[in-house]
Amino acid sequence: MAERERAIVLVSGGLDSAVVLALARARGLACHALSFDYGQRHRAEVRAAGRVATSLGAASHRVVRIDLRAIGGSALTADIAVPRARRAGAGGIGSRAKRARGASAIPVTYVPARNMVFLSLAAGLAEVVGAGSVWIGVNAVDYSGYPDCRPAFIRAMQRAIGAGTKAGVEGGGGGIRIETPLIRMSKAAIIRAGSAAGVDFGLTHSCYDPSPRGLACGRCESCAIRSRGFEEAGVADPTRYVSRRG
Amino acid sequence: MAERERAIVLVSGGLDSAVVLALARARGLACHALSFDYGQRHRAEVRAAGRVATSLGAASHRVVRIDLRAIGGSALTADIAVPRARRAGAGGIGSRAKRARGASAIPVTYVPARNMVFLSLAAGLAEVVGAGSVWIGVNAVDYSGYPDCRPAFIRAMQRAIGAGTKAGVEGGGGGIRIETPLIRMSKAAIIRAGSAAGVDFGLTHSCYDPSPRGLACGRCESCAIRSRGFEEAGVADPTRYVSRRG
Repeated sequence: MAERERAIVLVSGGLDSAVVLALARARGLACHALSFDYGQRHRAEVRAAGRVATSLGAASHRVVRIDLRAIGGSALTADIAVPRARRAGAGGIGSRAKRARGASAIPVTYVPARNMVFLSLAAGLAEVVGAGSVWIGVNAVDYSGYPDCRPAFIRAMQRAIGAGTKAGVEGGGGGIRIETPLIRMSKAAIIRAGSAAGVDFGLTHSCYDPSPRGLACGRCESCAIRSRGFEEAGVADPTRYVSRRG
Repeated sequence: MAERERAIVLVSGGLDSAVVLALARARGLACHALSFDYGQRHRAEVRAAGRVATSLGAASHRVVRIDLRAIGGSALTADIAVPRARRAGAGGIGSRAKRARGASAIPVTYVPARNMVFLSLAAGLAEVVGAGSVWIGVNAVDYSGYPDCRPAFIRAMQRAIGAGTKAGVEGGGGGIRIETPLIRMSKAAIIRAGSAAGVDFGLTHSCYDPSPRGLACGRCESCAIRSRGFEEAGVADPTRYVSRRG
């Protein structure tokens, strides 16, 4: 039997990246999962990443530590309060209506240049293991308005990886492709695709501000987007909340 | 007095980045130095970065820890032997002749995607401190053939930073520029420029494989390029070697 083609999959422990891993596995790829411990408040995410990688049959799982707190600037890594989401339809932080208003849409939970750092490290790992692609669960529909989730950013990073890596420069196999299967999907569509591909969403963690026991707060923006996605998908939400948002 | 414009300067502790810091300071910028402890064999570099930042009047100096050993793939971070440079003129690892031969020119000391990771983190810090530029001492003349030192890579990263950062998207000040003052200079020209700008090269560290006391090996590629640069510049080499190469 021929060796399977290898891929790097960025697995955060959240819902989206679990669906990405399931989709990459469904293509028959040998998936090397990569997670980051970057001093985030919600480290329950890193534990969830390990559960997700195992349950979906990743070939390996690495956790790279980066001390992003030395840089700061985000509610997810510094001492800035995580805001509560406003109600859907009332211009909540993650809503399309709010983003359409323009410049002020990037929230305090934005971690400066996070996906740029993560994609760079994934490209490095792709070189080391001989992977032809890097998979990332960015989404430019039901998302938080972070600039590093948009197609223009992904295209620019694809060029940087082509120009800045040994695989890109030496060619022979076409270098390293960035795969973003979720980028144009709604959260509900992502949840339906994940359900069909066998993702156990109960293993995933999305909350920015979980309880010490790892329960979701039900109040932050990430909880709000996730909860609305399950409603719209018509899929039962297995998330364990401390309290419901309201 | 108006507040000075801020810049992020990547300071490795090596010769080139010390010259970059001196040039940015000479422009009157408030320079925030950024270094990385990435599990490199040559940690003497990180200590040298602190000495350089202090001596050249950096406004701050941060050291971000990233465990690149979890990724591996380089003689600088994994258990791969650091090669000795061959003699200049005989097709040494870092020579222009060798690189002109093509594909096999990227050496084992290449750290996969290193400058992509470093520039990404520098862009993040630039957002946090409100800096308008990121300065990096890449050089595409007397260098090691690493793909992430070339102008095509820097241009691609400039686009990625424009598309993927809050500063780039929200505009108002033109985002974050990458400044590469050394990219077209020979090592000798870099050394002369640094001399003129007051760099104390005795504080810098270039060796990939230093002794436990931090003395340069005099045999690795980095020592060879540095030593040849001082010779060609007609500047006295203050480097403390364990032994001379030869």
